Amino acid sequence: MPTITAFENSPDRGKGHARDMRVRWAFEEVGQPYDVRLLSFAAMKQPAHLALHPFGQIPTYEDGDLTLFESGAIVLHIAERQDGLLPKDANARARAIAWMFAALATVEPPIVELTMAMLFERDKGWYAERLPMLHDRVRVRLGELSRHISEADWLDGAFSAGDLMMVTVLRRLNTSGLLDEFPDIAAYVARGEARPAFRRAFDAQLAVFNAASRP
Amino acid sequence: MPTITAFENSPDRGKGHARDMRVRWAFEEVGQPYDVRLLSFAAMKQPAHLALHPFGQIPTYEDGDLTLFESGAIVLHIAERQDGLLPKDANARARAIAWMFAALATVEPPIVELTMAMLFERDKGWYAERLPMLHDRVRVRLGELSRHISEADWLDGAFSAGDLMMVTVLRRLNTSGLLDEFPDIAAYVARGEARPAFRRAFDAQLAVFNAASRP
Repeated sequence: MPTITAFENSPDRGKGHARDMRVRWAFEEVGQPYDVRLLSFAAMKQPAHLALHPFGQIPTYEDGDLTLFESGAIVLHIAERQDGLLPKDANARARAIAWMFAALATVEPPIVELTMAMLFERDKGWYAERLPMLHDRVRVRLGELSRHISEADWLDGAFSAGDLMMVTVLRRLNTSGLLDEFPDIAAYVARGEARPAFRRAFDAQLAVFNAASRP
Repeated sequence: MPTITAFENSPDRGKGHARDMRVRWAFEEVGQPYDVRLLSFAAMKQPAHLALHPFGQIPTYEDGDLTLFESGAIVLHIAERQDGLLPKDANARARAIAWMFAALATVEPPIVELTMAMLFERDKGWYAERLPMLHDRVRVRLGELSRHISEADWLDGAFSAGDLMMVTVLRRLNTSGLLDEFPDIAAYVARGEARPAFRRAFDAQLAVFNAASRP
């Protein structure tokens, strides 16, 4: 059974924004049981973990003599080996993988830039003046995505690993108010969150947070 | 023969920092001839191109009835179909793909954040105070990468698509001075740039820029 790593005490307080959520969701979609090893922030930067993850983050994936890091790579590895996350047709499969990369390389960076500023620059003199610019950078991507999704349920045909990655990336905007400006994207995220596999993954990471915060 | 899109007039003035460089390099490594269709900035945002690339960027990849976008997805597609960019061993292959994701999702975002600030916030009152913070975010990643590479030639065994992506991401720091602080990373980038396939790809994109800037 593969083992992944996750935060012992998630900084999002159980909202499921940490990147282990993507891997948990992928396991649930394909019906693959998995183990979780919890890590403190201090342990993530120790040599034992750095040997598995050069950047000292979560999640990692260990299965026999294979160790992987990067949530995108782990989800792709799971999707390539079991049914449920990638189409059988070769062209549709390549396009689903393109959407995984789009989620991580095109949509997520301005979202992370915004959330990092909200976390770490709130007390800076420039925060109020810079915030609209950061919002606009996210709005550009949401507008393009909205035009693409339009009335479709998923990004390209049936639900795929591309949707899984995109929904987890967009969920990071939950507290920003920006999703309210794009009802079709908010509905898309809600469709993802309504999947039984998402719910099981969400509940599993929430249980970790609740156990850690129990007095 | 596949066709990719690239800037008609590259904003980096032929330095090869645009994302078509990754795809050109991948084609050269596997020995695959390709065609290029050049686009103006205006054309990239027109419906004809948005039908190929929902975010209105370059590069795209067209081959028969398959259209792809996202440089990571295109390089992976090329690497999966022809020898030279992914190891044969299944575990080594998965790890090479993990490095592709690491380049795009973990190393590139703070580099893009820095270069965007250098391009668009230089005249802002906060620029001088914020710049050291942006430099430090990049330094964290370079330090982690440096500790991993150490004395090795490439990220994990032989040169792979993971190195191709990482070198193109790191090259964006060429004008920042940060690579000088990490001589092992500067040497790693230089090893990538010295590959004959890199040189051919670089010269091809430079020829486009020189043709466009001829009076």
